[in-house]
Amino acid sequence: MRIVLDAAGGDNAPEEPVAGAVRAARDLGCEIVLAGPEARVRAALARQRTAGLALSVVDAPEVIEMDEHPAQAVRRKTRSSHVVGLRMVRDGQADAFVSAGHSGATMAAATLVLGRIRGIERPALAIQFPARDKMFLLLDIGATTDCKPEYLLQFAQMGSLYAERGLGIANPRVALLANGEEASKGDRLVQEAHRLIEQTGLNFVGNAEPKDALLGCVCDVLVCDGFVGNMFIKQAQAVVKLALTLVQDEARRGWAPRLLAGLLPSALWAGLGGGAVRLGGALGLLSAVPLLGSLLVPPLLRVRRKADYRFYGGGPLLGVKGVAIIAHGRSDAAAIATAIAQAHAAVERGAVLGIADMLAPQAAGAPSA
Amino acid sequence: MRIVLDAAGGDNAPEEPVAGAVRAARDLGCEIVLAGPEARVRAALARQRTAGLALSVVDAPEVIEMDEHPAQAVRRKTRSSHVVGLRMVRDGQADAFVSAGHSGATMAAATLVLGRIRGIERPALAIQFPARDKMFLLLDIGATTDCKPEYLLQFAQMGSLYAERGLGIANPRVALLANGEEASKGDRLVQEAHRLIEQTGLNFVGNAEPKDALLGCVCDVLVCDGFVGNMFIKQAQAVVKLALTLVQDEARRGWAPRLLAGLLPSALWAGLGGGAVRLGGALGLLSAVPLLGSLLVPPLLRVRRKADYRFYGGGPLLGVKGVAIIAHGRSDAAAIATAIAQAHAAVERGAVLGIADMLAPQAAGAPSA
Repeated sequence: MRIVLDAAGGDNAPEEPVAGAVRAARDLGCEIVLAGPEARVRAALARQRTAGLALSVVDAPEVIEMDEHPAQAVRRKTRSSHVVGLRMVRDGQADAFVSAGHSGATMAAATLVLGRIRGIERPALAIQFPARDKMFLLLDIGATTDCKPEYLLQFAQMGSLYAERGLGIANPRVALLANGEEASKGDRLVQEAHRLIEQTGLNFVGNAEPKDALLGCVCDVLVCDGFVGNMFIKQAQAVVKLALTLVQDEARRGWAPRLLAGLLPSALWAGLGGGAVRLGGALGLLSAVPLLGSLLVPPLLRVRRKADYRFYGGGPLLGVKGVAIIAHGRSDAAAIATAIAQAHAAVERGAVLGIADMLAPQAAGAPSA
Repeated sequence: MRIVLDAAGGDNAPEEPVAGAVRAARDLGCEIVLAGPEARVRAALARQRTAGLALSVVDAPEVIEMDEHPAQAVRRKTRSSHVVGLRMVRDGQADAFVSAGHSGATMAAATLVLGRIRGIERPALAIQFPARDKMFLLLDIGATTDCKPEYLLQFAQMGSLYAERGLGIANPRVALLANGEEASKGDRLVQEAHRLIEQTGLNFVGNAEPKDALLGCVCDVLVCDGFVGNMFIKQAQAVVKLALTLVQDEARRGWAPRLLAGLLPSALWAGLGGGAVRLGGALGLLSAVPLLGSLLVPPLLRVRRKADYRFYGGGPLLGVKGVAIIAHGRSDAAAIATAIAQAHAAVERGAVLGIADMLAPQAAGAPSA
């Protein structure tokens, strides 16, 4: 198997992508092609131990900047890593493309270069989102902001297939993101999509509110339009960051230390039997404020890490004729390696291209909406 | 001023609404009419100290249950507290209506009984949402799930007026909730609304992502459609609850206690000068696990409290011909009193009915969309 990696994409390119590629080539035993400005990529590669690994470089001197309009940039910069890499996939020279670069450009390039699977109306970008017990697949998170009910139906079908084949979840439970569990909830789009999905053979569990998905873990696949999905992720990140900030503010203000001052003595006495420790007085603890306050932060940071999708490799763009995995811009080498492993699994198990077979009878018979 | 309170609405009715009414009557010096099943309301009232307060009861024997369809229930149950109370507002017997009951029913009843302000296409429910430094007004959070750009324009106008008059914010900054700051971001609805709002005299700061509103505090009024706004709130609540749950899980697993065990000794020695405390050894602290783990929770609970809108009284339904404040179903007496105070301020300052004057020239001239 041969996977093309966008070596020019992401905040830490080319160093982290190259390091991630080396790691993935070693772990997966597959061939990795690094697409990017050749000299820079080769220089980064020279700093790695690559003996015995199948790593090659393909020159892609143009770079799509973050402030460029995705579709326009893709049309103009045909020697960018996005276009060069995806053309290799289109032409059968590679099996998958992975990028931590401009995600809008990757989506635009994948749609333009690879084209949509016959019968698929619009592509959807999926990611794994953390819930209490395990993650669920959320789509669309931004590929298609304006949706028709038929698009959501196809997102449900593609998401279910990817969850089953790519993530190994048997008979995945599919839900629609809505403002209430009843079928009457949601806006018109969700209500109509509900009726359409109900008629399929999918394991459809109905509507799910955010709390049902995050805490109740009622679904393996959560479907919404690209605008709502993007808000879902961004609101989660903003709220976690706000909580972290407020807790830090609280700790600085001395609320937490005051509580610790009140409770710690009894905790210490209870814990240590009262014999080994003698306390100079509860109030004395207040002088330890900065350190005690800081104790509240690490667990929250760990929660933030759990809630931050950039630690989970990447997400597949579903509905295009090829495997394209989009990783977070801040991906480090480990995240890149995870994204490459995702691409590897998706190719091996037909989790993305299998969509074409799944839709084949439907695409032949059903009229397009 | 006379305010009707739905004494039958909310999880803790009639006790908490009645207690909240008593508190508000005392604090605000205004007259409060309690609408609900008379005998039960009078019984609850008899348990309060009401000497010298202007409190009365109006019988509303029918109750709209949570599982009833709002509009249908409102049409059928004309002797419900919602309909009885709002008719008093419509007929000039009261200045405002406050309810912690079925919010869908309150919105439906307010729209049906009071009617929409001339020129307003759809009503919007607004609430104050907590950000890092101060709150912002978020609307719509569920009154109108399917929106046209013109509706969002009016939400922006109504929200701005309410923020200015009801909340005392001079020249409030208005933003559109979107998936990016650039005017090109958002779905078609947001893009078109952006163009419309830009042409008004509002203090429009453009698009805001969740992080801009929550952490950057870039706006005083944040506008979105009722579906997205409802998701915004519900996702915030779910994420905070998830974070709290994960931190509790972490603490139970011993991660936090392990850290505390590592750091506390030095903190204690530093804090207390090393003289007053003698530690039996860092590992001994591990036996205090349950209590130490639990220390991480209270600050998060306080954050959750800050992020939970039920502690902020209620939100006004904007666009109807009268003041209707919708409080959270779990409101306690304090929350009810706050909601009544909001109603009082809104009436006194023309924060809701002033919308009619604001739109008067527009409604006369502009064609309806």
